[in-house]
Amino acid sequence: MPHDRDVQVHLLPDLAPPGWLTGGLAVVIDVLRSTTTMIHALAAGCTAVRPCLEVDEARELAGKMPAGKVLLGGERGGVPPPGFDLGNSPSEYTAKVCCGAMLVLTTTNGSRACFRAAEAERVLVAGFVNYSAVCEQLRLDHRPVHMICAGTDGEISLEDTLLAGALVDFLCDVWDVRLNDSARLAWDCFENHGQVLLGAMQVGKGGMHLQRLGLAEDIQAAAQIDQFNLVPELRRDPLRVEVGSVGMVKSRWPKLK
Amino acid sequence: MPHDRDVQVHLLPDLAPPGWLTGGLAVVIDVLRSTTTMIHALAAGCTAVRPCLEVDEARELAGKMPAGKVLLGGERGGVPPPGFDLGNSPSEYTAKVCCGAMLVLTTTNGSRACFRAAEAERVLVAGFVNYSAVCEQLRLDHRPVHMICAGTDGEISLEDTLLAGALVDFLCDVWDVRLNDSARLAWDCFENHGQVLLGAMQVGKGGMHLQRLGLAEDIQAAAQIDQFNLVPELRRDPLRVEVGSVGMVKSRWPKLK
Repeated sequence: MPHDRDVQVHLLPDLAPPGWLTGGLAVVIDVLRSTTTMIHALAAGCTAVRPCLEVDEARELAGKMPAGKVLLGGERGGVPPPGFDLGNSPSEYTAKVCCGAMLVLTTTNGSRACFRAAEAERVLVAGFVNYSAVCEQLRLDHRPVHMICAGTDGEISLEDTLLAGALVDFLCDVWDVRLNDSARLAWDCFENHGQVLLGAMQVGKGGMHLQRLGLAEDIQAAAQIDQFNLVPELRRDPLRVEVGSVGMVKSRWPKLK
Repeated sequence: MPHDRDVQVHLLPDLAPPGWLTGGLAVVIDVLRSTTTMIHALAAGCTAVRPCLEVDEARELAGKMPAGKVLLGGERGGVPPPGFDLGNSPSEYTAKVCCGAMLVLTTTNGSRACFRAAEAERVLVAGFVNYSAVCEQLRLDHRPVHMICAGTDGEISLEDTLLAGALVDFLCDVWDVRLNDSARLAWDCFENHGQVLLGAMQVGKGGMHLQRLGLAEDIQAAAQIDQFNLVPELRRDPLRVEVGSVGMVKSRWPKLK
């Protein structure tokens, strides 16, 4: 077993100090909903996702692209800004809508996590919906791992921490790891909630907010373990997310063993 | 059972947004070591603790007080700054040293947590060493609860989260509570580590650092559940910590039941 691989969880993007991720492998996590939505969009045929921090920036970028080849998606306060083609619900991103289009996406928490993670050498995008495929990439890579949890409006979120913990749990099986304190907390969260995934996601702040908006089905969608076998990766110049790897992988979800 | 009491954990002082604590009951937690040390110092006869953010500020404040009636204590990087009377080890604060003296204390993480918590209406100081006494005060009070974890040099710490989780566990027994996501994470941490308290404290970043400094016995000291039955409270004008309540209380540590 290879030994002493650093595995660090950052429960919010700002909790990773500047320079900390350099040379590492980052995993961006925003379960409700932006990383789940990115995975859905790419699986449905979007060519790439261009994350944007601001609504106006997203509008401007989309405006420069050829009509019919671009989708403008995202949310503020959980709902799509005026004039957007799509919101941030995974189910909106169907093959019919997505095929061959570039998605310009701006979300409250997930976009920030993507930009923060860009400091790392390699950046993967994770959800429960591609859990085992992400595990496979983590297994094959040798760099220190940094999981960047997006959180909810500046607050640490239960569901992001839970997925980080599930990935820590996997890494502890295949590597001799050195965990930071937040990775241990995430692991604890997974130990306690991994068997009641949907319930945990419904009770957190983000899940409660979605239920109030009538978007409870988005939580269901985000809880579909291993629905997809692709791993989106961040590419640069310009910063974008594309399908990085795809293929059948062994199921790594521990509670199904 | 009284219902719907808000119980929020803030895993670092800066994670509580400005204004958030107003009207509430805050609990300051810096297990390794400053809140543990404050409890020891007050139990040993210090009249009060004056927390200071900066070393120079602490020196200046202590310099203005009558000699023989003041102790200058604290740490930077875990060790006492030059010219300080005492460091931040609980065992240094004996009755012989402390009796009748004002303690001016500056620590890297705990002092910031105290100042952040001062926004609340009432502020308690907690360690494992006065766990059940703090539980009793939380039970009798009716305000929303905010636990302010000091962390370690800007990072979330396992041992502070663990104590916050132990207090959440108690509150869930006596109140119908509304938890934020971080309170759930803290509770998870307690569920997993509450039975192996010392081991958990040794493996976190703060505990590892103390062991490297040869201060492993401070971890042992901080893990002495219910060694004291006093609860320090923050007083104002000037900001200081004094004994707020004292008395025999029922043991509330769940793993000993």
